[in-house]
Amino acid sequence: MTSSEWKNLIARKKQEQAAAIPKEWIIKDLPPKDTLNVVGFPESCGLLTPKEIQITTAEIGPLLANIASTTWSAVEVTTAFAKRAVIAHQLVTCLTEIFVDRALKRAAHLDEILKTTGKVVGPLHGLPISLKDQINIQGLESTMGYVSWIGKPAQSNAVLVDVLEAAGAVLYVKTNVPQTLMWPETYNHVFGRTTNPYNRTLTSGGSSGGEGALVALRGSPIGVGSDIGGSVRIPAAFCGTYGLRPSYGRIPYAGCVNSMEGQDSLPSVLGPLCNSLEAVKLFMKSVATQKPWTLDPLAARKPWNEEEYLLVDHGGPNAKLCFGIMWDDDWVRPHPPVLRGLQETKKALLAAGHSVIDWKPYKHKEIVQISNAIFAAGAAEDYRVSTAPSGEPVISTMLIGVEDHDYAPKHIPGFRPLSEGVSSYDLWQVQKKRRDLRQEYLNYWNATVNITGTGRPVDAIISPCAPYVAPPHGFNTLASYTTIWNGLDYTALVIPTGLSVDPVLDTASSRDQFYNDEDKAIHALYNPQTFQDAPISIQVVGRTLEEEGVIAIGEVVDAALKNTLSKSKI
Amino acid sequence: MTSSEWKNLIARKKQEQAAAIPKEWIIKDLPPKDTLNVVGFPESCGLLTPKEIQITTAEIGPLLANIASTTWSAVEVTTAFAKRAVIAHQLVTCLTEIFVDRALKRAAHLDEILKTTGKVVGPLHGLPISLKDQINIQGLESTMGYVSWIGKPAQSNAVLVDVLEAAGAVLYVKTNVPQTLMWPETYNHVFGRTTNPYNRTLTSGGSSGGEGALVALRGSPIGVGSDIGGSVRIPAAFCGTYGLRPSYGRIPYAGCVNSMEGQDSLPSVLGPLCNSLEAVKLFMKSVATQKPWTLDPLAARKPWNEEEYLLVDHGGPNAKLCFGIMWDDDWVRPHPPVLRGLQETKKALLAAGHSVIDWKPYKHKEIVQISNAIFAAGAAEDYRVSTAPSGEPVISTMLIGVEDHDYAPKHIPGFRPLSEGVSSYDLWQVQKKRRDLRQEYLNYWNATVNITGTGRPVDAIISPCAPYVAPPHGFNTLASYTTIWNGLDYTALVIPTGLSVDPVLDTASSRDQFYNDEDKAIHALYNPQTFQDAPISIQVVGRTLEEEGVIAIGEVVDAALKNTLSKSKI
Repeated sequence: MTSSEWKNLIARKKQEQAAAIPKEWIIKDLPPKDTLNVVGFPESCGLLTPKEIQITTAEIGPLLANIASTTWSAVEVTTAFAKRAVIAHQLVTCLTEIFVDRALKRAAHLDEILKTTGKVVGPLHGLPISLKDQINIQGLESTMGYVSWIGKPAQSNAVLVDVLEAAGAVLYVKTNVPQTLMWPETYNHVFGRTTNPYNRTLTSGGSSGGEGALVALRGSPIGVGSDIGGSVRIPAAFCGTYGLRPSYGRIPYAGCVNSMEGQDSLPSVLGPLCNSLEAVKLFMKSVATQKPWTLDPLAARKPWNEEEYLLVDHGGPNAKLCFGIMWDDDWVRPHPPVLRGLQETKKALLAAGHSVIDWKPYKHKEIVQISNAIFAAGAAEDYRVSTAPSGEPVISTMLIGVEDHDYAPKHIPGFRPLSEGVSSYDLWQVQKKRRDLRQEYLNYWNATVNITGTGRPVDAIISPCAPYVAPPHGFNTLASYTTIWNGLDYTALVIPTGLSVDPVLDTASSRDQFYNDEDKAIHALYNPQTFQDAPISIQVVGRTLEEEGVIAIGEVVDAALKNTLSKSKI
Repeated sequence: MTSSEWKNLIARKKQEQAAAIPKEWIIKDLPPKDTLNVVGFPESCGLLTPKEIQITTAEIGPLLANIASTTWSAVEVTTAFAKRAVIAHQLVTCLTEIFVDRALKRAAHLDEILKTTGKVVGPLHGLPISLKDQINIQGLESTMGYVSWIGKPAQSNAVLVDVLEAAGAVLYVKTNVPQTLMWPETYNHVFGRTTNPYNRTLTSGGSSGGEGALVALRGSPIGVGSDIGGSVRIPAAFCGTYGLRPSYGRIPYAGCVNSMEGQDSLPSVLGPLCNSLEAVKLFMKSVATQKPWTLDPLAARKPWNEEEYLLVDHGGPNAKLCFGIMWDDDWVRPHPPVLRGLQETKKALLAAGHSVIDWKPYKHKEIVQISNAIFAAGAAEDYRVSTAPSGEPVISTMLIGVEDHDYAPKHIPGFRPLSEGVSSYDLWQVQKKRRDLRQEYLNYWNATVNITGTGRPVDAIISPCAPYVAPPHGFNTLASYTTIWNGLDYTALVIPTGLSVDPVLDTASSRDQFYNDEDKAIHALYNPQTFQDAPISIQVVGRTLEEEGVIAIGEVVDAALKNTLSKSKI
């Protein structure tokens, strides 16, 4: 395909997308480009009715209760979120597939069932849920940002789609991703760039950047992303939402398209991005209730474990917990706002009666690098095969202002150095090394039993989500604070601290010693103006397949943070 | 290393092994080579006291109860099993490491604890457990049949060793394996060949062939093997014991040595070989109780689920079940005794009130071949690296009477065709194809809901364990009836039917149509004399991580078989 041919394909796809937006939802007076923070716009633009604002800002519990009691119809709720999603899209380019008509038909059907039977279909009855582009919905495309994949509607639903629909959900939009998915920002040739609603000069993160931006603008009550190195958590952190990276196989992945399919040593996982932990829990519990392991051969046979949610492994629901805070991975030191987020979290946890110790990083860089080496074993060939049909180039930088993203100047930082693949035997040696590191890390964690004072090892690790809050486009060059937990397959939950970058509190620090050039370059990137309004988030990290426990511990952290924040506001 | 150098290493290792056998346990009047069936020998040889015979033939429940009540001391029990194991070894060459002194010290320590505290250490208090050679015990060697690995004692325990000892077990012997582990028979340069106690001209199977032979001779109440393509189930089936292949990660594997380490797409699993289902259940439950996932990062966080054991997913403990019997994989038709075993099982299940339908194989050959292709991606290089230090050749046939097992004549059947490795990207394509086949198979199974009459899909599949009962040495060339369940990661349990080859009932059948040359060659192998006395076993197959359910369903099948067998004897 010539360059003009594949660019024509893109143009056609974009026209189709534009045509899918109801005309009356098109905003004429969009904020100008130099309006950076657009978080308030959906509610001030006049397109949403007061009731629609009420619906889209409701907590998940009352929202579902109001649908179940027919106070709000599923059609009304779907309309409200779809409209708000379309507004969000016009602000930050977060959507790919938009299918409002289909969603409204489904919502009307659910309303009808409720009216006729008096019963909800399931725990998500009438709830709109947005999906990352790669999650197949029969009849819709999953281009995943590849021009080559345009025009190939999915033949069947991903298992998760069936599971969510069986639980009563309404699907209405899919969301934007970076080409290949293997980049912690969101830009591709087909749909363009998703920007951060808190500051549009900053990245929304990636690869589930469309979800991060959409959920932050409350255009979706629950968004589903995927995470192989931080792809749920980075957008969640950068956009100020909650985001859970569950363990391998906890959420069914079958039937999604993906990069590097067949790479099953360090698999990507699906996980929710939401505006509350209640919604995270609801999603996880609702999926488990549908026994996804009976539908997806790779889904873990692990029902929702209420005992684990009640923290049986952590002294019970009211026990004093001990947290280990990792301030720094000894690779790249976090920027001042990130460190302030950790400090505030520590303060809040101590105030709530918990104890906090320092978590010294253990072979952090080695674990991250070995995880990346697994991807690198066959990634280049995978990208080549995926882009070959159209001839579109593999994107090599996401910097703003670079005319051609496919041929980044050498001096520009890139996230994904492509190297040629290795033999299966050599890959096995890498995977063996990683297995050994997982064992070492587990032993290291277990050994904290001697210093916590609780009789248990550290109950959860508190970690930065990245060395920075949302950086400018093209500058998210390091995912070490998230990838490590994928490499270890630990459950990791992003919690927004409720804080954002403060020009007074978060002044640039001065350092004259650096771990390495990367540390130095990232240090130099910081000043509070560049990162204006960016949310500050933390990660709560628990063990493999410990989603119930991590959500419960997350609730403890979240409550502590909210408590100190409300006190400091008084 | 020259050939004489590595042969000297073997000689030294064999001397050490011989020296580890208490002199008074050396049998002077061993049965001559042409005594094929030696199952009765341990009890007739005069070395075991009546009490030792009582101990080594006791059911697992009373055995443990007698230790707990101090009726039998752990020292007595350990002595009895160790002595019987050493007798077994002299008959069928089933042991590698023998450490009776160490075991007796441990047993005495357990007796002391029980005496002092009045309490057992755990559910396995005082129970001797034998381990496949690859399971590391600190200070002992795990040569795994490689000359190159002689003289390298393990630096630490495998996690399972710690788990079993925490539960009160006594370890006393390790058992023989084939070089590389990737062969369903048991022969290596270091320890030689393990033969089948029911007929020493037949193979004990492999790769856990030492365990199969030892447990069959009741030299161990619970043996632990490993299974990547049938390596627990083939020896169990050929030697007439129970054997469970749990799902990936159910039993902690960390700290074992292995072939092809780092190949984590289709991993080997550990599982028990025992003389009763009660012992299988006890092992699985005891391991789960120790929360192995807190010690092994790859162990599944799945506590023993009593509800699943009570068959909640199968209509409850007393429901009528529906079984699907796979008579033939459309690749190699089973020999007459194997088919009779399935027929008797069907009869027994129908008599017990259950229903039975035919299970038509689905892409059986494709699933097995794709599983083998994953191993082949890097196996040759792995074997080369493991044998390089000594220069010992990679074994390429296990035929009896072949002088040099390393250079099999081309016309001789071999199990393991070695091919050069492939790139990681190509391996991913194979793994992707396998993932798709797993999905297809699951859908295929789920669709049986329409034909079972129970409202559920088939509750379990009944399958042959191999196309033959234990074949002569060198002739176990196909593991298709076991490898398929590894490829699908299904829980698979071998149950001895209580029957063995009968020259009257199991006459050679005549066929003139064959699926392929392999089918024809294996058909031609059969006559009842060759397979004299070989036990007949079946497999019960359930879903991934459904160990509790499969054990419970196995109990149903076992009881039904015992019931019809006892009736037919009356």
